[in-house]
Amino acid sequence: MFGHLNPDTDAIASALVYAHLLSRQGIDAQAYRLGDLNFETPFVLQKAGVEAPPPLPVLEAGTAVALVDHNERAQSAPNLTDLQVTRVVDHHKLGDLTTMQPAFLRFEPVGCTATLLLKLHREARLKVEQADAWLLLSAILSDTLHFRSPTTTPDDREAVAFLAPIAGLRDVTAYALEMFAAKSDLGDTPAAELLKMDYKVFPFGDPARPQSWGLGVIETTNPGYVFGRQAELLDAMRAAKAADGLDGVLLGVVDILNETNRMLVAGEAEAAVVQQVFGAPTLDGVADLGGRISRKKQIVPALEKHFETHS
Amino acid sequence: MFGHLNPDTDAIASALVYAHLLSRQGIDAQAYRLGDLNFETPFVLQKAGVEAPPPLPVLEAGTAVALVDHNERAQSAPNLTDLQVTRVVDHHKLGDLTTMQPAFLRFEPVGCTATLLLKLHREARLKVEQADAWLLLSAILSDTLHFRSPTTTPDDREAVAFLAPIAGLRDVTAYALEMFAAKSDLGDTPAAELLKMDYKVFPFGDPARPQSWGLGVIETTNPGYVFGRQAELLDAMRAAKAADGLDGVLLGVVDILNETNRMLVAGEAEAAVVQQVFGAPTLDGVADLGGRISRKKQIVPALEKHFETHS
Repeated sequence: MFGHLNPDTDAIASALVYAHLLSRQGIDAQAYRLGDLNFETPFVLQKAGVEAPPPLPVLEAGTAVALVDHNERAQSAPNLTDLQVTRVVDHHKLGDLTTMQPAFLRFEPVGCTATLLLKLHREARLKVEQADAWLLLSAILSDTLHFRSPTTTPDDREAVAFLAPIAGLRDVTAYALEMFAAKSDLGDTPAAELLKMDYKVFPFGDPARPQSWGLGVIETTNPGYVFGRQAELLDAMRAAKAADGLDGVLLGVVDILNETNRMLVAGEAEAAVVQQVFGAPTLDGVADLGGRISRKKQIVPALEKHFETHS
Repeated sequence: MFGHLNPDTDAIASALVYAHLLSRQGIDAQAYRLGDLNFETPFVLQKAGVEAPPPLPVLEAGTAVALVDHNERAQSAPNLTDLQVTRVVDHHKLGDLTTMQPAFLRFEPVGCTATLLLKLHREARLKVEQADAWLLLSAILSDTLHFRSPTTTPDDREAVAFLAPIAGLRDVTAYALEMFAAKSDLGDTPAAELLKMDYKVFPFGDPARPQSWGLGVIETTNPGYVFGRQAELLDAMRAAKAADGLDGVLLGVVDILNETNRMLVAGEAEAAVVQQVFGAPTLDGVADLGGRISRKKQIVPALEKHFETHS
């Protein structure tokens, strides 16, 4: 049971809670993580009083696995095609996943995988325990930026309203701000790590010969800090592009409180695409994407559409 | 909203019931079929007092569609990759489906898609109406061969037990026999049609250069009738192989009541594979597969495994 590479709070929380839910249903399940925690998740785990899951070990071919919060191979265990995927709970579009046998798949276009995990508890007529309630509501607040993201659905809002009393949380707004502040306290993290903290590689265009783009996001209440390290970050983006053989690298810097996205653009090739797709010029390595704060709903689909006709 | 090519009772019933369920939830949905009805489905529709869905028209690129009881492109609308798949309810393994946007996907390893549709009613807190109960329970009895198939799960049995009183059905066993008799009354249907009645093309082996095998099934309470037309059927299988550029064609003849499968084998290449995979020699075009009556659970996975290492 694991979430995507470069795990965010949803990837960790959903893995922990789903493993616990299955265990309560008599199915042996253990949560793992694919990569290091970001700065937000330890804060959430501490509030919930839960340990971080261990890193995923190398799995033998044929091992039964469950995926949460992702389904694309590039975001998953390196040998995913050799593993037996038995369960997936996710809120992303369906990519290149296949299964060897009929499996449990639960995908809905909601703001957060954790919202689906609440539904699974209800359908199984199991009460959500307090620590799990903390994890789930934190993941929903994190993924939806406290309902600011356009990915937010009524199900996500209803889930938080339902979970907060179980968690014993009275002031959701204050907690969300505290969580976002923890996430924004980036300290002296090397630029290469900041880039990869919430970072996914997407294939665009012709599936036989896709373009590969690395798309990072830094969601922060303190964008001034990030732009203070702009030169370093642009260097790290160019280095990642060369090292990973990518066709483009972009890093969205999302101002959570003002709901804006100013994007760092690695080079001229990327700047041309950003101009064409979003109508946004790149000045000194930065393109102002306005209110396009959702990678999943606003950035990726637009790039996908572009490369369908330009690859 | 539509089920797979060469629709069986589940493909038709699930499309009708899911379209009705979504309509009751305020979502505009219309059921269609991909191909002609088999001999069982008209009997079921008449019992339920429901009209058959119309054939699927050619859909414009970008049209929103929902799939039931299938997910592989080869079993779906011809231009599926241009359509916007918004919902899938299925109990097969996940194949080459992708979605352009996050979608509703509900897959579970149960015996019948109709079993999942009952769950969707319950989760939406909607009562199943009488005609829908007929359709769903008929689909479950059909797909599981009245619980004889190894694909049967406790959920399928429980669903029929729950639905029968709503449908007003007292003797499930008698109804199942009547339904299977209708299915077995094949009359003077041309052999080419008998072959394609419950027939799917599967890609096996290397996804870049897959082998294509056509796998038909005739489930019948009267296998004597089928074997009386053995020569004709073998000719039709060889013709389909040549016309569709296939690497192999097999036609399982499942004796529903005795739970056995005697398979018609199109040629020597197929016979060699059937011998290797199932240890069953082919004599006069027929291989005795014993109790392997489920294409989904017993035939396809074994062939898949074989071609993974032999293609």
